[in-house]
Amino acid sequence: MTQLIRTRVTDMLKIDHPIVQGGMMWVAQPELVAAVSNGGGLGIMAALTFGDAKGLEKAIARTRQLTDRPFGVNLTFLPTLIPKDYGSLIDVIVGEGIPVVETAGQNPEPWLDRIKAGGALVIHKCTAIRHAKKAESIGCDIISIDGFECAGHPGEDDVTSLILTPLAASQLTVPVIASGGFADGRGLAAALALGAEGINMGTRFMATAESPIHPAVKQKLVEMNETETILLLRSLRNTERVWRNTLAERVASMEREGAGIEQLAPLISGKNGLRLLSEGELEAGLLPVGQSVGLISDIPAVAELIGRTVTQAHELLATRLPSLLA
Amino acid sequence: MTQLIRTRVTDMLKIDHPIVQGGMMWVAQPELVAAVSNGGGLGIMAALTFGDAKGLEKAIARTRQLTDRPFGVNLTFLPTLIPKDYGSLIDVIVGEGIPVVETAGQNPEPWLDRIKAGGALVIHKCTAIRHAKKAESIGCDIISIDGFECAGHPGEDDVTSLILTPLAASQLTVPVIASGGFADGRGLAAALALGAEGINMGTRFMATAESPIHPAVKQKLVEMNETETILLLRSLRNTERVWRNTLAERVASMEREGAGIEQLAPLISGKNGLRLLSEGELEAGLLPVGQSVGLISDIPAVAELIGRTVTQAHELLATRLPSLLA
Repeated sequence: MTQLIRTRVTDMLKIDHPIVQGGMMWVAQPELVAAVSNGGGLGIMAALTFGDAKGLEKAIARTRQLTDRPFGVNLTFLPTLIPKDYGSLIDVIVGEGIPVVETAGQNPEPWLDRIKAGGALVIHKCTAIRHAKKAESIGCDIISIDGFECAGHPGEDDVTSLILTPLAASQLTVPVIASGGFADGRGLAAALALGAEGINMGTRFMATAESPIHPAVKQKLVEMNETETILLLRSLRNTERVWRNTLAERVASMEREGAGIEQLAPLISGKNGLRLLSEGELEAGLLPVGQSVGLISDIPAVAELIGRTVTQAHELLATRLPSLLA
Repeated sequence: MTQLIRTRVTDMLKIDHPIVQGGMMWVAQPELVAAVSNGGGLGIMAALTFGDAKGLEKAIARTRQLTDRPFGVNLTFLPTLIPKDYGSLIDVIVGEGIPVVETAGQNPEPWLDRIKAGGALVIHKCTAIRHAKKAESIGCDIISIDGFECAGHPGEDDVTSLILTPLAASQLTVPVIASGGFADGRGLAAALALGAEGINMGTRFMATAESPIHPAVKQKLVEMNETETILLLRSLRNTERVWRNTLAERVASMEREGAGIEQLAPLISGKNGLRLLSEGELEAGLLPVGQSVGLISDIPAVAELIGRTVTQAHELLATRLPSLLA
């Protein structure tokens, strides 16, 4: 589909539409990433999904079989006991000439020179204005600012996209991508009004034809409403927004009773989450889901989703909103 | 200032600009209410601020000395031990020919016929889609949907304005006013993109020249950032967003330790809040403040604030957003 909306983000990322697909662990597999890039957005795969450098290399090769458009790799810097081998992942990214790296988690500064020396643009994803300013100051090219609504890790401040987006846009020089709570063209138009130059969608892309998750999970996303998420693990200062299934309620209850990481670990294990995602065992694990799930009512192909999102935003900007001018 | 943006809300409320001032207890005094209406928005006074029917009558008379434009009265239906005499307040509203009543709190159905028989339009304020649909079904004319960001009572669902606004707009036939997190023209333009036909601003109007609160409090609002609010009283299922001062931290800590209403009551008393508001004793009480406080950086006159808000939104709709069309 021809370009309808052009911003610094579409120019810098060399994409047609200002829509970035969140680098979701396990979900952002080559098929989904390629579908988003083929649809004119930016697909992003999460490096940590693929185990090691070899796995990432394979995933990149597979994606390149499916698309010749640009796509990105997400590097999430986690405070883990066993340090991940980020160096070798970055070697792959640089060696493969990946054009965009999305960093998240801890401050990317120790790795930034090495990433940028390879020529990649860096989108840093964060949940607070102070972190966004810091990221700009160390040389990140674009800031993705993630509001309270988001799936996964919203941080500990609980400030929403409606507040974070205009603050980031007015306090930064680099372009801002609004993230958390976006699922359609109304959200895209609103983000642009707030000063962002693109949106990130995660939960919305989970409920698409090319998303590699179990059909029962996709159907559940269609059925869920906006009140069916819950914040967990605040007690560990590692808050996560997930679908409020029976297991999530149990974890919340254990937290209220003072359970620590040792007691919670077996329940929140990624293995349980994988069973949920891949086998459709809906109560087996925790499923990161954002409040935008309330705006999801179907399971379209990715290209159709991107097309209707920009078409709706275009119609708002070109026709509906100007019609309100007195 | 001439009308720049016209919606069903401006037409129905007979106002120039799609901006409604939240009916804040204690703060929405005649001077502020009249200034908002004179500025082309809709000022709303909170009936419960004035003690009884006689007090409300006086406040209406005082407001009428200050403006000949329409203004509204807020009726908040609280679950109190000593039932308020809502009947006599409604008699005053009807007798005085008040054109707009904003209802909030519990279901307004028992009082709706009596209010509407007097000819007033009813704006019902709520924090959940199920309540919005119920309010429409019983005959409310406009729904004001209040997101997680808001000052005061955001409800217990924690769904943000970015999600609630488009859901309300698409599921209701009556016009929607977006509330919670709005403080400038970017927010107004975003609300319109999301399908609302107006915005409600509360916290933003507290930091204006005509707001009847202590200068030290206004200055504090300018200094606060978006992370300096806190949700209290969730343990009582009566969640309230307030400024995170020392007292608020203390109440939060007591709640975590299991304190009940008997222990909390002396701290959360309205009398303490009044000392804070009127005498500038910043640690004396709890001050309802929304996340939009992070977007506030000055203390303008109300007319200037309304003027620049609609001018900024107009510029976005007329120029900036269309310039992004490829």
